[in-house]
Amino acid sequence: MIAPPPMSRQRTVAKARVLVEALPFMREHRGKTIVVKYGGAPMEVAPLARSLADDIALLQSAGINVVIVHGGGPQLTGVATKLGLETRFVDGLRVTDTETLDVATMVLAGKLNTDVVATLAAGGVPAVGISGVDGGLVIARRSDRDLGFVGEVERVNPVVVLALLEHGFVPVVASIAVDGSGQTYNVNADVVAAELAIGLGAEKLVFLSDVPGVMGPAGDLLSELSVSGANELLAIGGVIDGGMIPKLESAVLAIGAGVDRAHFVDGRLEHALVLELFTQEGIGTMVTNDAPPENPDIKEEAS
Amino acid sequence: MIAPPPMSRQRTVAKARVLVEALPFMREHRGKTIVVKYGGAPMEVAPLARSLADDIALLQSAGINVVIVHGGGPQLTGVATKLGLETRFVDGLRVTDTETLDVATMVLAGKLNTDVVATLAAGGVPAVGISGVDGGLVIARRSDRDLGFVGEVERVNPVVVLALLEHGFVPVVASIAVDGSGQTYNVNADVVAAELAIGLGAEKLVFLSDVPGVMGPAGDLLSELSVSGANELLAIGGVIDGGMIPKLESAVLAIGAGVDRAHFVDGRLEHALVLELFTQEGIGTMVTNDAPPENPDIKEEAS
Amino acid sequence: MIAPPPMSRQRTVAKARVLVEALPFMREHRGKTIVVKYGGAPMEVAPLARSLADDIALLQSAGINVVIVHGGGPQLTGVATKLGLETRFVDGLRVTDTETLDVATMVLAGKLNTDVVATLAAGGVPAVGISGVDGGLVIARRSDRDLGFVGEVERVNPVVVLALLEHGFVPVVASIAVDGSGQTYNVNADVVAAELAIGLGAEKLVFLSDVPGVMGPAGDLLSELSVSGANELLAIGGVIDGGMIPKLESAVLAIGAGVDRAHFVDGRLEHALVLELFTQEGIGTMVTNDAPPENPDIKEEAS
Amino acid sequence: MIAPPPMSRQRTVAKARVLVEALPFMREHRGKTIVVKYGGAPMEVAPLARSLADDIALLQSAGINVVIVHGGGPQLTGVATKLGLETRFVDGLRVTDTETLDVATMVLAGKLNTDVVATLAAGGVPAVGISGVDGGLVIARRSDRDLGFVGEVERVNPVVVLALLEHGFVPVVASIAVDGSGQTYNVNADVVAAELAIGLGAEKLVFLSDVPGVMGPAGDLLSELSVSGANELLAIGGVIDGGMIPKLESAVLAIGAGVDRAHFVDGRLEHALVLELFTQEGIGTMVTNDAPPENPDIKEEAS
Amino acid sequence: MIAPPPMSRQRTVAKARVLVEALPFMREHRGKTIVVKYGGAPMEVAPLARSLADDIALLQSAGINVVIVHGGGPQLTGVATKLGLETRFVDGLRVTDTETLDVATMVLAGKLNTDVVATLAAGGVPAVGISGVDGGLVIARRSDRDLGFVGEVERVNPVVVLALLEHGFVPVVASIAVDGSGQTYNVNADVVAAELAIGLGAEKLVFLSDVPGVMGPAGDLLSELSVSGANELLAIGGVIDGGMIPKLESAVLAIGAGVDRAHFVDGRLEHALVLELFTQEGIGTMVTNDAPPENPDIKEEAS
Amino acid sequence: MIAPPPMSRQRTVAKARVLVEALPFMREHRGKTIVVKYGGAPMEVAPLARSLADDIALLQSAGINVVIVHGGGPQLTGVATKLGLETRFVDGLRVTDTETLDVATMVLAGKLNTDVVATLAAGGVPAVGISGVDGGLVIARRSDRDLGFVGEVERVNPVVVLALLEHGFVPVVASIAVDGSGQTYNVNADVVAAELAIGLGAEKLVFLSDVPGVMGPAGDLLSELSVSGANELLAIGGVIDGGMIPKLESAVLAIGAGVDRAHFVDGRLEHALVLELFTQEGIGTMVTNDAPPENPDIKEEAS
Repeated sequence: MIAPPPMSRQRTVAKARVLVEALPFMREHRGKTIVVKYGGAPMEVAPLARSLADDIALLQSAGINVVIVHGGGPQLTGVATKLGLETRFVDGLRVTDTETLDVATMVLAGKLNTDVVATLAAGGVPAVGISGVDGGLVIARRSDRDLGFVGEVERVNPVVVLALLEHGFVPVVASIAVDGSGQTYNVNADVVAAELAIGLGAEKLVFLSDVPGVMGPAGDLLSELSVSGANELLAIGGVIDGGMIPKLESAVLAIGAGVDRAHFVDGRLEHALVLELFTQEGIGTMVTNDAPPENPDIKEEAS
Repeated sequence: MIAPPPMSRQRTVAKARVLVEALPFMREHRGKTIVVKYGGAPMEVAPLARSLADDIALLQSAGINVVIVHGGGPQLTGVATKLGLETRFVDGLRVTDTETLDVATMVLAGKLNTDVVATLAAGGVPAVGISGVDGGLVIARRSDRDLGFVGEVERVNPVVVLALLEHGFVPVVASIAVDGSGQTYNVNADVVAAELAIGLGAEKLVFLSDVPGVMGPAGDLLSELSVSGANELLAIGGVIDGGMIPKLESAVLAIGAGVDRAHFVDGRLEHALVLELFTQEGIGTMVTNDAPPENPDIKEEAS
Repeated sequence: MIAPPPMSRQRTVAKARVLVEALPFMREHRGKTIVVKYGGAPMEVAPLARSLADDIALLQSAGINVVIVHGGGPQLTGVATKLGLETRFVDGLRVTDTETLDVATMVLAGKLNTDVVATLAAGGVPAVGISGVDGGLVIARRSDRDLGFVGEVERVNPVVVLALLEHGFVPVVASIAVDGSGQTYNVNADVVAAELAIGLGAEKLVFLSDVPGVMGPAGDLLSELSVSGANELLAIGGVIDGGMIPKLESAVLAIGAGVDRAHFVDGRLEHALVLELFTQEGIGTMVTNDAPPENPDIKEEAS
Repeated sequence: MIAPPPMSRQRTVAKARVLVEALPFMREHRGKTIVVKYGGAPMEVAPLARSLADDIALLQSAGINVVIVHGGGPQLTGVATKLGLETRFVDGLRVTDTETLDVATMVLAGKLNTDVVATLAAGGVPAVGISGVDGGLVIARRSDRDLGFVGEVERVNPVVVLALLEHGFVPVVASIAVDGSGQTYNVNADVVAAELAIGLGAEKLVFLSDVPGVMGPAGDLLSELSVSGANELLAIGGVIDGGMIPKLESAVLAIGAGVDRAHFVDGRLEHALVLELFTQEGIGTMVTNDAPPENPDIKEEAS
Repeated sequence: MIAPPPMSRQRTVAKARVLVEALPFMREHRGKTIVVKYGGAPMEVAPLARSLADDIALLQSAGINVVIVHGGGPQLTGVATKLGLETRFVDGLRVTDTETLDVATMVLAGKLNTDVVATLAAGGVPAVGISGVDGGLVIARRSDRDLGFVGEVERVNPVVVLALLEHGFVPVVASIAVDGSGQTYNVNADVVAAELAIGLGAEKLVFLSDVPGVMGPAGDLLSELSVSGANELLAIGGVIDGGMIPKLESAVLAIGAGVDRAHFVDGRLEHALVLELFTQEGIGTMVTNDAPPENPDIKEEAS
Repeated sequence: MIAPPPMSRQRTVAKARVLVEALPFMREHRGKTIVVKYGGAPMEVAPLARSLADDIALLQSAGINVVIVHGGGPQLTGVATKLGLETRFVDGLRVTDTETLDVATMVLAGKLNTDVVATLAAGGVPAVGISGVDGGLVIARRSDRDLGFVGEVERVNPVVVLALLEHGFVPVVASIAVDGSGQTYNVNADVVAAELAIGLGAEKLVFLSDVPGVMGPAGDLLSELSVSGANELLAIGGVIDGGMIPKLESAVLAIGAGVDRAHFVDGRLEHALVLELFTQEGIGTMVTNDAPPENPDIKEEAS
């Protein structure tokens, strides 16, 4: 066999340099935990789902613990409609009677959770799907507002997630919660992701959705945002999009309780997670604490 | 405070004797694994579900590993009908097109699995619901018969179940399986239970349903049955009830592969599992190997 | 074989209920340590000794660490008399010259200790007999009173007891102690039991003897008694029986140093230990701290 | 302060050489187990007992596991006589009725066992006294000969001894055994020592008594003896002393079952154990296997 | 801050793809051991040494155990000459008198070993330099040929290397060996690398030098070579270059003893190790076993 | 074989007593760490080196962790001279240009380090030679004085030493250090020994050289010296010998940072280390803290 010509060697060396450049990021994140809130288009479009599976495989191989939390509002509305149930929202929250709760459980903990796990498995990622009911992971109480079985997260008990991580599995969590009597609730997936990130002492909370990031008052993408800046934006009516409000509030909650960074990343971009974690290029919006970080992220140093 | 009168002491001593009599059974089963196939009425009637939760709590406290497998055919038919899907069976097997597979996933892995977990949690049992898709637990291939997404179990990979047992959880398994490409299948829950019992090296496989046990040709309840006896009954047309056929075949399969005993127990009887495991009284039907057992069960010795 | 008639099933279900009712108690005590001071009739009457072996087997099976301490005054007097030694008491304490100390060592650490271990072994309990001399378990100094080799307990060093418990043995401790020079002493077994309970961080100290419990001034059995109530009773001359005085004082000592409860139980009642630990019915006298308990025992909640 | 004169330095260097010479022996025995059968004068004379304590402390410090087995025939006869019991021997075996068994238990497991433990403790050795009854250590059956409760060792179950060694204790074993029903027996201590050495995979079995060793037909001390030589001596009537017969038979038994060496050492010689294990000088009689040893002892190489 | 323009995103995605493509190789090699023989230009040219440090950092981060073996003939000759020692070779082997052995020890175990360790440390790799004398790593005997203190490797004892790997260090081994008497020897570094690879059960043995690989009879670079092919080349006089002969012989030795692959890689190429291990592109020459591999390397599958 | 005559037994018993007398010292030092600074004649004279190997073997066998630090000024000067380099000292510190640093690395980390390791290996001690560069063990910065590559120790990072001790090796450390950029330095071996003793929490720091100890103003050997006494002696010009100054300063440094004792021992005395550690006789000079020791050394108690 004859060796390849020198031309290809130059391309090959360029590849090796990319790998070597990723090294500080691999070291930075090794052994840490990242919670990914997964929703919208990246969840529904097959090639994106497969790209996510590749990314999570690489993160696992670099020793990062990955936990996925997903919701699934549109799919839930679809099935409810087919079953003849009326969908009603109050202040953006789904009014959830017994029948709707059953449908939510079926769609979130049944259909979507299984789909995510099967997609990850096809990409070589050993995933295990659970919901907040399993192992008492997410304990909720009935919301004060008259919305039926909508729950507010009281606390997370991450034993089952830690057990799965310890055995090399990627836990995939559907946003159904439970109370002490065994009653289940529909809870907001963004809040579940934030509370899990806090409970697991996660390094990062990543919202992977179908927008480029957080947009400023002028409609421009903000690449970085402090907690106080986020609170100001939330205070101004009409700047932050409706679906973004609970996400940005959850990011603020998580960082206030010790999570290092929250990221809003465009999941429609291929390999969005790997780009975010293993390259110098910033994508989307990063939310940080106001105080100057003592151990600044390698990313900022470099840029 | 005044001490209770001697009369009550006699009743009290009787209670203590019951506890002491249970001791050899506790010792016998400590550290072993029992797979319970759970279905029918015991699953749908609240007091029975609660009695099962109590029983499993006691088994756990005595150091027994419990794994639950459930199906849910009738509930699946109910939701499919509401969604306007036609239900069709060929040789007792549900023809499963894409829509039906989605409904099966929603009902089994979503609704019923969550209900079982929540009921156990309310009874103090830390349960975690998964399906055969999670962690690649049940690998299936498409059935040769033209039934759509009906799968035949190829092998079980019990790592995720062992991880959960190691952390003190009771795994609750919905009968959905997966293949290497990520395609999911509807599989028979009795077979899943038998294969899991084999893969886990279980001591017992218990079918908890709404019949008293296996009935003989004369319509009498058989309290004990050998594998060869079971095969003879299965060979005679019309003796074994339709729903019982895959159960009895699965029992034969499990015992042939090293599971010590299979039991058919009437789940409508309160505390059926505790009675079966911790008392001398036999209930339902026990299926054993033909060869004389080398380590005869304490139960037989005593009766 | 024909299944048993429904009549027996009702009795069977009643049995199962007794087992299920014991569950909260099993959970309550799992992993905790109980020190049993064993003496008098229960120690000398064979059926009672066998009932105790059954009870301890059940406690072990439920994950409770059991430690037994025994004395043996009457047997010691018997052998001393046969050997022509005069038995003399001052304030209820045996005057112990060199010969009497030898007899005490022979009877307590030799004969009685071996008898208890052999009885437990016959009941399936792996017991190991030691005395306070072994591993420096009970360190004593010579009593100030002129009584010869009567020792006062200075401290316990429970390493050897913990080693035996760790390997699943029930330690059986004879009340002989030692000082730094290797001199042995006869010490009060009630005090040894209390000090061991303190040193082991035991949950309970149980005095198993041949009286129903602590009797009040009116000769009535007291089912519950606070530490201050116990001190009052001890202060009144003539109410507490002579043999009961060191026991009640030891109970007060143990509870003051952090042992949760002390119990005076009638060892002549069959399965007295199991009744005390695993049923709601109170027997004998329970001594508690004066302060309202923060984690009230399940027993009180229920009654 | 002024430094010592050079004269003392020479003596000091000589001391250091002794320590350095002991090094290969320390390495040779580290981590191994030695069973010492202890009896006769060394057990009754206080300075010898103290010298033994020093030796065992040194062995422990060098990482050797030491197990002591003791009998106590003369002391037993003494107490039995005081209690008016007649002592009767058949073929050198004590006829043991119920009363004699009680006295044996008291003297061996009570008095002598406690004395050995207290003496070792005073020398800084953490010892724990047990008998063959504890933890089912020595299982015996009634001897076929009509001798009452004289037992023949069926097997040893060394779990309790291993547990004590693991925690740094020196187990001191009295020669009382038990059967499955809880009946105790008087058993020969030499046989118990040999069986324990076998069961523990011991490197050496040392008989420490009050004779210089095994004497040959000419009355001369034999410094070395093969198993076949020992059998020949035993076959010749009248050469081996009565008390030595069961010892030499036990040595042959132990070596046949894999114990490397048996030694007969004069316990009246100060520091006999340390001399035997840590110096080149041979004392007493060493019994070895007939086959040329593959890993010859350092001792032989050097001499 | 404003987000980067979409143009840069495309380049960014390309980077992410390189990372994702490396994933199967990372998985393939995780937990395995690679021995790198390091010499010639890559060792003397600073940028190449730094590129090697980067590569080894990446290998470590991907969970690969790396062991470096180095020689240093030219540097040794240089220092010997400065010290006025004559350098003489017989059949390509350096005649090594006492003075030359001292110089070899100083240059290899002193200067070069320290330089490699310091360079790796500057690149963030925690390296520890040892020689074959340390921990008895390489045991040699005097060569039969009359060459002075030239040794032939008898066996390797890799305990010290395993200890360093276990603690996350990269062992850097100088090719000096020792015999049982403490005499040191100059040994061939290629042979040391091969023997270490065998002793460690390494997956790969990589020769990193300043030639492109193994050249065929026509002067063309051979990209793949079987063991039998290598032996044929060695048998033909004049084809294999002098310095390559011991390397190729060592490669044949290693593969014959179970090492999966040997590679001859051009260390003048930047990131040569990363290219070799983490990309599909083959560089240099790979030597494989003759038998068709049962678990073919991912690399071959892909190419 | 005939047993030895009684005469030899008396000498034998005397030997045993020496061993038993060493017991408290063995217990005292077990599990502790001792740093030995090794230099001068003991390092160059073969019998002394062998005696040291014997001593260290005994210390290891008694469970003591031994770490050796060595310099080698005279040997370094010798090689430098042969290579035509001029040796220049400023205030007793060697001016170290690039060539001199290379020679220092070759002589210390190459020749002498290997010699010490090989000598220990021949005495049965598993030693591993490293320098302060390995594993970043000694981090230095360039001295403020204009001396070239002479370093001042900034901190020690003893991970590699602990890893070697954990696996039973004796680390032998050459006094070369490194900074963050990979630049190496020549550092004072006495200071390295003191800093390592501090970093390892060592019990003792022993300077083994070719003087009897620290001499007082009258030229008499001081057998004991407090830290304040040492400081006074250092303050008086001309009392402390030039080579002793950095040693005594390092001893003061180590004791001030928590090392219990420093010893100046005459390495020309055979078995100097064993005498110092395992006998009551004091040799050389012991430096202690001023405060009365709370846990006085056994040695002082005895003398």
